Amino acid sequence: MSTIKPPAEAEHAVRVKAVFDDIRTTRNTDFVNNFWRYLAFDAELLEQTWGEVKTVMATPSALDPLTKEMLYLAVSVSNACSYCVHSHTASAKAKGMTEAQHADLLRVVSLAAKTNQLLNALQVPVDATFDEEQ
Amino acid sequence: MSTIKPPAEAEHAVRVKAVFDDIRTTRNTDFVNNFWRYLAFDAELLEQTWGEVKTVMATPSALDPLTKEMLYLAVSVSNACSYCVHSHTASAKAKGMTEAQHADLLRVVSLAAKTNQLLNALQVPVDATFDEEQ
Amino acid sequence: MSTIKPPAEAEHAVRVKAVFDDIRTTRNTDFVNNFWRYLAFDAELLEQTWGEVKTVMATPSALDPLTKEMLYLAVSVSNACSYCVHSHTASAKAKGMTEAQHADLLRVVSLAAKTNQLLNALQVPVDATFDEEQ
Amino acid sequence: MSTIKPPAEAEHAVRVKAVFDDIRTTRNTDFVNNFWRYLAFDAELLEQTWGEVKTVMATPSALDPLTKEMLYLAVSVSNACSYCVHSHTASAKAKGMTEAQHADLLRVVSLAAKTNQLLNALQVPVDATFDEEQ
Amino acid sequence: MSTIKPPAEAEHAVRVKAVFDDIRTTRNTDFVNNFWRYLAFDAELLEQTWGEVKTVMATPSALDPLTKEMLYLAVSVSNACSYCVHSHTASAKAKGMTEAQHADLLRVVSLAAKTNQLLNALQVPVDATFDEEQ
Amino acid sequence: MSTIKPPAEAEHAVRVKAVFDDIRTTRNTDFVNNFWRYLAFDAELLEQTWGEVKTVMATPSALDPLTKEMLYLAVSVSNACSYCVHSHTASAKAKGMTEAQHADLLRVVSLAAKTNQLLNALQVPVDATFDEEQ
Repeated sequence: MSTIKPPAEAEHAVRVKAVFDDIRTTRNTDFVNNFWRYLAFDAELLEQTWGEVKTVMATPSALDPLTKEMLYLAVSVSNACSYCVHSHTASAKAKGMTEAQHADLLRVVSLAAKTNQLLNALQVPVDATFDEEQ
Repeated sequence: MSTIKPPAEAEHAVRVKAVFDDIRTTRNTDFVNNFWRYLAFDAELLEQTWGEVKTVMATPSALDPLTKEMLYLAVSVSNACSYCVHSHTASAKAKGMTEAQHADLLRVVSLAAKTNQLLNALQVPVDATFDEEQ
Repeated sequence: MSTIKPPAEAEHAVRVKAVFDDIRTTRNTDFVNNFWRYLAFDAELLEQTWGEVKTVMATPSALDPLTKEMLYLAVSVSNACSYCVHSHTASAKAKGMTEAQHADLLRVVSLAAKTNQLLNALQVPVDATFDEEQ
Repeated sequence: MSTIKPPAEAEHAVRVKAVFDDIRTTRNTDFVNNFWRYLAFDAELLEQTWGEVKTVMATPSALDPLTKEMLYLAVSVSNACSYCVHSHTASAKAKGMTEAQHADLLRVVSLAAKTNQLLNALQVPVDATFDEEQ
Repeated sequence: MSTIKPPAEAEHAVRVKAVFDDIRTTRNTDFVNNFWRYLAFDAELLEQTWGEVKTVMATPSALDPLTKEMLYLAVSVSNACSYCVHSHTASAKAKGMTEAQHADLLRVVSLAAKTNQLLNALQVPVDATFDEEQ
Repeated sequence: MSTIKPPAEAEHAVRVKAVFDDIRTTRNTDFVNNFWRYLAFDAELLEQTWGEVKTVMATPSALDPLTKEMLYLAVSVSNACSYCVHSHTASAKAKGMTEAQHADLLRVVSLAAKTNQLLNALQVPVDATFDEEQ
């Protein structure tokens, strides 16, 4: 049950086909997952979103691909986004995340949520030494 | 302005002193940050929390210390915990996070929040291929 | 799968029937959606909630009905409430939201979530000019 | 207290100066608020973020500028981003939001948060009629 | 730094004075905290909000006053609302919350946040026995 | 659809069986709910999590078992964790939560979310009297 009707023949539209083709080339697979198929209801939103995801996630940068994918997953868990948790867990595994690393990620993410609550509850003043502007 | 009064002479209490000493030894520094100083209002909560942080963050595991610290930071940003963002940014830098890696982390975390909202708004069905139980 | 059992013959209860009738009259439709049917397990909660929704959303005020419905939808997306996203997307469309406006709303909501994370991560001081109390 | 040190003479850098100049031209003011001054620690992040904000918020689109600004504000409130709430309340006022509209926005946003919690608590099944895919 | 200017002589307005007087009577104190003083910028919003808070929190109901106050505090912590955490911690203490109960509340709230993340990450199917509709 | 494959014969593993047996003994039932069955994919995570849940929730402490369960439920609602809302509503009912108390909890939790948004939107300064450190 989605809130928009995904285009039936999305790739008949030139701009949509161009994005899907680029997804397939970039990821080296024929599979295009539902997020992109539904987002195709608005070609501009599809192009802009894929463009940004490709730039941030599929371009070599200061962090390696698996670390970036695990950060993406950690945020998705925090935001309670079911689809995102599924897709980024799958992506992290595809990029080499082992079961032990997955369990480790869960330990860190859930511990962070726990101490975040303690700090939000105690309203502890930030130590002066943490201020980058001093 | 905090919601509890931190103990004035926290280390006069044996259990508190033991935790503070362990923090100093584990981190190889004399500095004990405010979170622990305020949490000392309840010795058991202090012991349990430090014990878990030490086990998860300071014990060798499947993920390296910097990756774990960046995951902790990503979750803290998502939960809008000001103190946590300050302390874990400082910790990540202390463990070697460069300015370029910091910027990269920000790019991933903010992009994840963006696409999380798109998926929460579109309510796209999860692709069958993402199901680990099939 | 809900956490409460919705009353089988809800409208046999006078207070529930009065609310359902008012929903039908106010919205000019026979359809009463599940939220109200389940909330009927507690007549007072049903009355109070519908009363407030009617006052805020169905009474002429400083903002027009479609703008209010889109604000409601934006918050529902941010709070990851699946039912709410579905019902308020439907309501916004019923009040005239076009597909282009829907896409525009998604662009703004997802961009806001993105820059919210950047600010939560950078902890930038608020500019003095933004203070209404000066 | 921020987590990065904002560049002292940010506009000595060509890329940063180009963005600041574009902000001034687009907004027709000399004032550049702190978000951009701090984000200047990474020229690419600054360019990408401003580029997207300008495209979404300062380009004519299906929704009018004030509606977009109020949606931005509603999301910022939901995400508890203090800086964002301040800056987007100021922007909405600058774009004509009256005090009565501000109060109306607060009524809708807070009511949405309230019913979001009721639905998250009751786990009510989504009505079939809300499904755009049927 | 607030986003609205609180009325200078709020109680010169009849509707505002009536609410402030009722707050003083209901709470048996002369003190009116800032939330109400700022909310007074819109008399209707002030009246509606105080009316609901009084009904839910200050009227005898199925849960005792301290339990309700602690639930309010738990939600405020989860939503990272700094003002709310301060005011509801103070209220809970005024209603008898001991330091040991405060620490216990923190243990439960932070543990809940932790396991919430684990479940959001694992996407475990809900057990059939938890369904109230069977 | 989960993101990990639950172990087929979980209790063939000694550490997993020990935890499951302790769950059954502590709760005086043969039923082990899905959370634990899935978490069994990592024995250490299972042991640590159950150990903490048992200590906090099943050990006599300053707050009574039902109050703790309702606090757990309130946080789960705020974090939009569907599984958690189902399991902790069931637990609260098993510990004696009446339908009237359930409705009361919903009133408090949803009102808190509402006023949290108002405060996040108004950015009201915290009253000096709420500061425990003065």
